[in-house]
Amino acid sequence: MTGSSVPPPVTAVMDAASAWLPARMAVVEDRLGELAGAYGPRLGEEAEATLRAGGKRLRPILVLMAARDGGGERAIRAATAIELLHMATLVHDDVLDGAPVRRGRPTVVARSGRERAVGVGDLLLSRAFAELADGGAGAEVAELSSASVALALGELAQRSDAYDTSITEERYLKRCTLKTARLFESACRLGRLAAGGPGTENLASFGREIGLAFQLLDDVLDVTGPPERTGKARGTDLLDGTVTLPLIIARRLDPELEAVELRDLDQDRAEEICDRIAATAALDQVRDRAREGIERAKGIIASEDFSDEERQLLSMIADGVVERYS
Amino acid sequence: MTGSSVPPPVTAVMDAASAWLPARMAVVEDRLGELAGAYGPRLGEEAEATLRAGGKRLRPILVLMAARDGGGERAIRAATAIELLHMATLVHDDVLDGAPVRRGRPTVVARSGRERAVGVGDLLLSRAFAELADGGAGAEVAELSSASVALALGELAQRSDAYDTSITEERYLKRCTLKTARLFESACRLGRLAAGGPGTENLASFGREIGLAFQLLDDVLDVTGPPERTGKARGTDLLDGTVTLPLIIARRLDPELEAVELRDLDQDRAEEICDRIAATAALDQVRDRAREGIERAKGIIASEDFSDEERQLLSMIADGVVERYS
Repeated sequence: MTGSSVPPPVTAVMDAASAWLPARMAVVEDRLGELAGAYGPRLGEEAEATLRAGGKRLRPILVLMAARDGGGERAIRAATAIELLHMATLVHDDVLDGAPVRRGRPTVVARSGRERAVGVGDLLLSRAFAELADGGAGAEVAELSSASVALALGELAQRSDAYDTSITEERYLKRCTLKTARLFESACRLGRLAAGGPGTENLASFGREIGLAFQLLDDVLDVTGPPERTGKARGTDLLDGTVTLPLIIARRLDPELEAVELRDLDQDRAEEICDRIAATAALDQVRDRAREGIERAKGIIASEDFSDEERQLLSMIADGVVERYS
Repeated sequence: MTGSSVPPPVTAVMDAASAWLPARMAVVEDRLGELAGAYGPRLGEEAEATLRAGGKRLRPILVLMAARDGGGERAIRAATAIELLHMATLVHDDVLDGAPVRRGRPTVVARSGRERAVGVGDLLLSRAFAELADGGAGAEVAELSSASVALALGELAQRSDAYDTSITEERYLKRCTLKTARLFESACRLGRLAAGGPGTENLASFGREIGLAFQLLDDVLDVTGPPERTGKARGTDLLDGTVTLPLIIARRLDPELEAVELRDLDQDRAEEICDRIAATAALDQVRDRAREGIERAKGIIASEDFSDEERQLLSMIADGVVERYS
């Protein structure tokens, strides 16, 4: 992979940034491509497919931005490692969900079976830590392993709560923090660890806010689709028994939804329930919450710790989270 | 967990060692027990079951022995981390194999399902790196992540080669090195990293030799059982399509075995094939190879880099590998 294959949604940020950011992101892309191909042709195909399905590279871009134009090799390694960890979780999540496609491409579990998908995920996860450790980055390993523990706990919480429509908003938000927001926070921390710079805690809060907003919108997109943009069928969460905020809110607004038993759903019925959720005010409420989070995030980086360019680019990233359709 | 719950096969080494070794191993056991209980009761049960099913603690003991009575907290952390990684691979292997029991106890995948088992394995793997990183041990992270990559590659090789009875001894041995020997080698390196000391490369070779012998014997035990000692049914490897050295050799000695199609087996037929393999000279040949490896390992530690006590204890560990029945 080369810099030219950076996914399109990121292009706007890259266009606005000084030359160093796209140049460094191209290095990260090349490094990810090299690693994907380092273990033979079959693994290469699986890793490459995961890499391409991984999307917008938000996490490595946040690492590089948090490191500003400093950070050198340490920041490159951290950006590479966080994307490897993200890829590992995608591969394992798809095992858990039995997902056939991700962003319109067949998942590793669909291509090669559960056994290989578990192994490929383990390889990517191990490689993430190797990537940091080979650069002698002890503090970064502590940060990423802590985020990786949180991710696993988030996934496990999601499994424990599966099919339980009585879970509270608080519990849902806690799970999203573990499963998603923590890694966005980590991206910010990793960049600052590589390069120093003021405002680490502010930037970490920024990451957490946009990560949470990202997950909220993701959960809206599962209800709204459209599948040709999201790359997966509507109602996938419902079929997996994953109770998200749109359903939690909609159940309060529509007594018929309150009676739904998630274990009994098929694809058609799941889409019907999506339509019913969409007919309530729930999706707007969740979108509003996500937008409020994005506004809080932008407020955080208004502090004098951040340069005008940083503020501009980080705001674009934040806006990108709520504007996305896939 | 306390020191008193150290599994019996290790007792002989502990009895022979100076007081520091059992004392430090008890600290590792306590630490593992703490970590197992750190994430709530359900995860605690699963982690505890895995911890108890994990067996003889050969890897952490090797770490502590390689660190001698030096190494302090770094060695404790490395010993804890390597057992966490080992536990993670057991949990994920059981997902791959769909194994119902391990050492006579229900596996996480059997207790709690595939989804949770993937998550529990990810959690243990992440926690292993967190354990090292929290101690600021960059070199140890590099070592363990490299071993963890090898383990994943070994598992993936095993999957790629599944049901392929034409695989060569060389390919089988390469897989065993990745899957098993590398982590024994790593245990030795981790201990020396924590405490320094001469003979690191010799000790690493010792670890590799006994690790390989361990795997060879493991593959013999899958054929011979008995299930009440190994904690699993005979012929499990055959049913998984895992072609091991006993079968590779026996196929050359018995034309009827050469014709066996592993995909068609059921439990009864797998046991019949085990009996046929046992009727050839294959098992003795594999056992001889394992013993030769153990002798090479003992030869390596005859060097003057090792004290008399080290030599005695390491030899006991090496002998323990070939004497085990479970």
